[in-house]
Amino acid sequence: MNKHAPLETAAIPTGERPGSKKVFQQGVLWPDIRVPFREVAVHPSAKEPALTLYDTSGPYTDPHTKIDIEKGLSKVREPWVVSRGDVEIVESPREVKPEDNGFAEGERLAPQFSAPRRVYRARAGTAITQLEYARKGIITPEMEYVAIRENLRRQEGEAAIRDGEDFGAEIPDFCTPEFVRSEVARGRAIIPANINHTELEPMAIGRNFLVKINANIGNSAVLSTVDDEVDKLVWSIRWGADTVMDLSTGRNIHNIRDWIVRNSPVPIGTVPIYQALEKVNGVAEDLTWAVFRDTLIEQAEQGVDYFTIHAGVRLAYVPLTAKRVTGIVSRGGSIMAKWCLAHHRENFLYDHFEDICEIMRAYDVSFSLGDGLRPGSIADANDAAQFAELDTLGELTQVAWKHGVQTMSEGPGHVPMHKIKANMDKQLAVCGEAPFYTLGPLTTDVAPGYDHITSAIGAAMIGWFGTAMLCYVTPKEHLGLPDREDVKQGVITYKIAAHAADLAKGHPTARTWDDALSRARFEFRWEDQFNLGLDPETAREFHDETLPKEAMKTAHFCSMCGPKFCSMKISQEIREQAAQQNDVAAGLDEMSAKFRAGGGEIQVPLTPAE
Amino acid sequence: MNKHAPLETAAIPTGERPGSKKVFQQGVLWPDIRVPFREVAVHPSAKEPALTLYDTSGPYTDPHTKIDIEKGLSKVREPWVVSRGDVEIVESPREVKPEDNGFAEGERLAPQFSAPRRVYRARAGTAITQLEYARKGIITPEMEYVAIRENLRRQEGEAAIRDGEDFGAEIPDFCTPEFVRSEVARGRAIIPANINHTELEPMAIGRNFLVKINANIGNSAVLSTVDDEVDKLVWSIRWGADTVMDLSTGRNIHNIRDWIVRNSPVPIGTVPIYQALEKVNGVAEDLTWAVFRDTLIEQAEQGVDYFTIHAGVRLAYVPLTAKRVTGIVSRGGSIMAKWCLAHHRENFLYDHFEDICEIMRAYDVSFSLGDGLRPGSIADANDAAQFAELDTLGELTQVAWKHGVQTMSEGPGHVPMHKIKANMDKQLAVCGEAPFYTLGPLTTDVAPGYDHITSAIGAAMIGWFGTAMLCYVTPKEHLGLPDREDVKQGVITYKIAAHAADLAKGHPTARTWDDALSRARFEFRWEDQFNLGLDPETAREFHDETLPKEAMKTAHFCSMCGPKFCSMKISQEIREQAAQQNDVAAGLDEMSAKFRAGGGEIQVPLTPAE
Repeated sequence: MNKHAPLETAAIPTGERPGSKKVFQQGVLWPDIRVPFREVAVHPSAKEPALTLYDTSGPYTDPHTKIDIEKGLSKVREPWVVSRGDVEIVESPREVKPEDNGFAEGERLAPQFSAPRRVYRARAGTAITQLEYARKGIITPEMEYVAIRENLRRQEGEAAIRDGEDFGAEIPDFCTPEFVRSEVARGRAIIPANINHTELEPMAIGRNFLVKINANIGNSAVLSTVDDEVDKLVWSIRWGADTVMDLSTGRNIHNIRDWIVRNSPVPIGTVPIYQALEKVNGVAEDLTWAVFRDTLIEQAEQGVDYFTIHAGVRLAYVPLTAKRVTGIVSRGGSIMAKWCLAHHRENFLYDHFEDICEIMRAYDVSFSLGDGLRPGSIADANDAAQFAELDTLGELTQVAWKHGVQTMSEGPGHVPMHKIKANMDKQLAVCGEAPFYTLGPLTTDVAPGYDHITSAIGAAMIGWFGTAMLCYVTPKEHLGLPDREDVKQGVITYKIAAHAADLAKGHPTARTWDDALSRARFEFRWEDQFNLGLDPETAREFHDETLPKEAMKTAHFCSMCGPKFCSMKISQEIREQAAQQNDVAAGLDEMSAKFRAGGGEIQVPLTPAE
Repeated sequence: MNKHAPLETAAIPTGERPGSKKVFQQGVLWPDIRVPFREVAVHPSAKEPALTLYDTSGPYTDPHTKIDIEKGLSKVREPWVVSRGDVEIVESPREVKPEDNGFAEGERLAPQFSAPRRVYRARAGTAITQLEYARKGIITPEMEYVAIRENLRRQEGEAAIRDGEDFGAEIPDFCTPEFVRSEVARGRAIIPANINHTELEPMAIGRNFLVKINANIGNSAVLSTVDDEVDKLVWSIRWGADTVMDLSTGRNIHNIRDWIVRNSPVPIGTVPIYQALEKVNGVAEDLTWAVFRDTLIEQAEQGVDYFTIHAGVRLAYVPLTAKRVTGIVSRGGSIMAKWCLAHHRENFLYDHFEDICEIMRAYDVSFSLGDGLRPGSIADANDAAQFAELDTLGELTQVAWKHGVQTMSEGPGHVPMHKIKANMDKQLAVCGEAPFYTLGPLTTDVAPGYDHITSAIGAAMIGWFGTAMLCYVTPKEHLGLPDREDVKQGVITYKIAAHAADLAKGHPTARTWDDALSRARFEFRWEDQFNLGLDPETAREFHDETLPKEAMKTAHFCSMCGPKFCSMKISQEIREQAAQQNDVAAGLDEMSAKFRAGGGEIQVPLTPAE
């Protein structure tokens, strides 16, 4: 097969997850809205309702949707965008230029995404970002969608376990559309939703919502094709990625991105400076505002939902990195630092920041203010360069808000555990509670090949402290471009970190999931235990390695301890035994009450009782 | 091959680790001592000394030692034990009985370990535990060994980065033999070292030492043979396990244990109740003090270094588990709970606790006071049952100390992040600073198949807070018996957690490792980056998947970003560029100084500078 032959829809992973059913909840304010969930039914013996889980997988897991990646996903959001009456069709959208794809030609040129679509932008004088709507008191369909999505089909007033420490977050018992609006209005949450990404299923990033995760995909000059990247997109959302960043470099950037955005139900982020650099043949010094501006418009018209902009890498901060162990480790940061030094001038992204705001505002592209000076090693954590840039991100957040642009800020990186909280506290203080979006952080440098784990520790902690979205790290970090399996490992590891954070924060939906799985475990409902887990296929495979027979799916033990030593089995026997003698709960309660009535004292003679 | 044919030494993994050299440091007080380390040399261009790493792998990685597992390791510690003049040879050691191996016969009986050895115990009236020596002011060879080991060849007075938050730990800048003695004397550290385990390379478990990790091995009634278990032992210490617990159940427990202890340079722990239960055919109610006592002597004579004893599972606490989501999940705990309820009597381990102390004291077996009522789910964390038992462990610690027995206490389990610190704080308070030894904890229940990761998050945190040893969890947890690959994944994941904890505590040896690896990374010394990592083979393999050519081992990029986008490469170019213009450090320093002299203010007009 020609490596750039049309993509094969058949190769894309589709179908429902094991034991899961795709279900939808309709909007009330906006009855057009259909918010998807993944429902996991348990065995009838459990006598409990099916569990509802957050579903990022989009139409790919909907058995009633026909997927055709050459047409792209259905543009369900287009009526919402158009009906507001404040956008116009761009009559002559920017034409694709040879440099957009790195001058690739012939066989080396990836196929264009050819299904027709309209390109929108704000009409002159209108304010069309979710932030601007929210400030005006308007609840958009996107906001109601998010509210429904965050509640996981819990009803208002339904009891929730709010056992957690939230460090000042203000997570409500129930997420109303008005709550979403108010969080967006004050800048504490963003709904990345370019008006040109009408295939989107809206989601929110904010400290008072479920913790989200991002998966990075994208080819490099060395590796991979369009097919791989669309596959990785669908694969990563299948396992739970809430947003996907396309970090492609090298040739075909424009065409790859088209395929990705048109087939993505999750927000897509990019780092526009990567493409701008390709347009100037990789020579950082040759970057200009004109090239960068052209790239912003190109990508905004394509429908990219958020841009990482390294405007905080100021000329004066570059020397602060001179004595670092690992210098500047952000790609965008190092490009801008090189530009600054070569020209002995201030970062042009900083100087043109208000111009950038005006472009992004016209399409509702959100800022992800890049941390170009993040530490790349434990030694460099929380240093002067990092925190000087963070101060600037705070300043830029205010500017972006002045222009009505939704904004989050990026964070490190490599940080030992005892220095993590300071990052969160400082970001909250200087960025006015704008959402924080961190890469890990990695809590040690000594484990190349395992940095999904070194970073999951830091990610779980900083998520607990208040980070709104965690950017995944795969096992290949520092070593190579992640493949399909790495993407899966990264996403699942970060789902763990994000859910551990939700639990510790006391999010009202969090405990339900753990409790359902633990009940299944205790009752030896093996199928339920597999299906309720983050990765049913792997759990089943691990179990079946040693006990493959179907009968073992109801066995009251596994090969870990065998039948005689299964504590869960013995523990159940204890309950049954007690139940024969008395009514179990009453009997054990009575014993417990006696014990407590005795003052709960635990003093008996330590001498043998014989 | 007959499944119980004599073990094949050739199959055991030996040889030095990639890029590593086995080196030794001699004792001063005890010149016989040779403490092993793993030295990793870096490329000469780095102009820096080789890095010294802690080495748990024993003689298996010593190219000058011939391994013969049928003979066992060299009994280097025997002269230390004998020369103290306070032990006697047991003239008629306990004979192996058919029930010790679960009545296995013929082909089903694992081969006996047949090399002859002497069995020791304390002479009447002598006090031979490390705790008792320490209290008398005696610095044993074991203590000096530990002191040398903990310093990783740092010299006294050598500078160290003590950047950390230690929550009241008292880690010295340099670990002297006297410091080890004082920590053991006050019960804050243990040196698990049965006088019958003379193959041992002593190590310490305590809050003021490096955080240690334990790997569980052992067959179950369903799976595995002697060969597998000896292989898993050697495999787990090769990757860094500091102690190994043999949790075998089913047949051949005695013989398997012999092979393990005789071939182990690390302390071996067991849960004697497992074997006792086998001796009464798996019927918990039939357990008696006589059977248990016999098992303790059997295992103490074999040389087991620490026993998990579930003496804290008191009759009165069992009802406190009645309404739990997952009941009792400790195997030992559930066995004892069943016994208590069946007889309506107090746990005989509690009643006989002083008898147990007297037996363990005669061989210097250490206590690991079992947490039989640890939570098995997020729902059950920090509940009344768990904390009632912990109070009892505190009481039992005092009793053990009265008898001169070294003691640590075990901890959970499944605990969400916000409830972890309370566990550490309570253990420190009620157990008199005896070392804490925790399983994970797992920070969420929703990821069967990934519980090495859910628990590494909790393990790193509790290690930071003060836990002295972390019991690993493998990807197979809850699903099946770990195989070789699972053991490796578990050990490496826990080495990450332990080292992240050491870093956050500010242990004086910790940062050196991260910094050496990060320098190698920044300077594109790929071979050094691989060799300095926890798993050189995997790091190299990941890199070589996409860039296999030897020339790429000095390339200034990898396939992750490719040459044009490698931030490290650009960052180096920035330094070189600056160096051409000025002297790099001076030049950048000057710029930095100017910036700071201006008050460090970051205000420039935000309007375009054109």
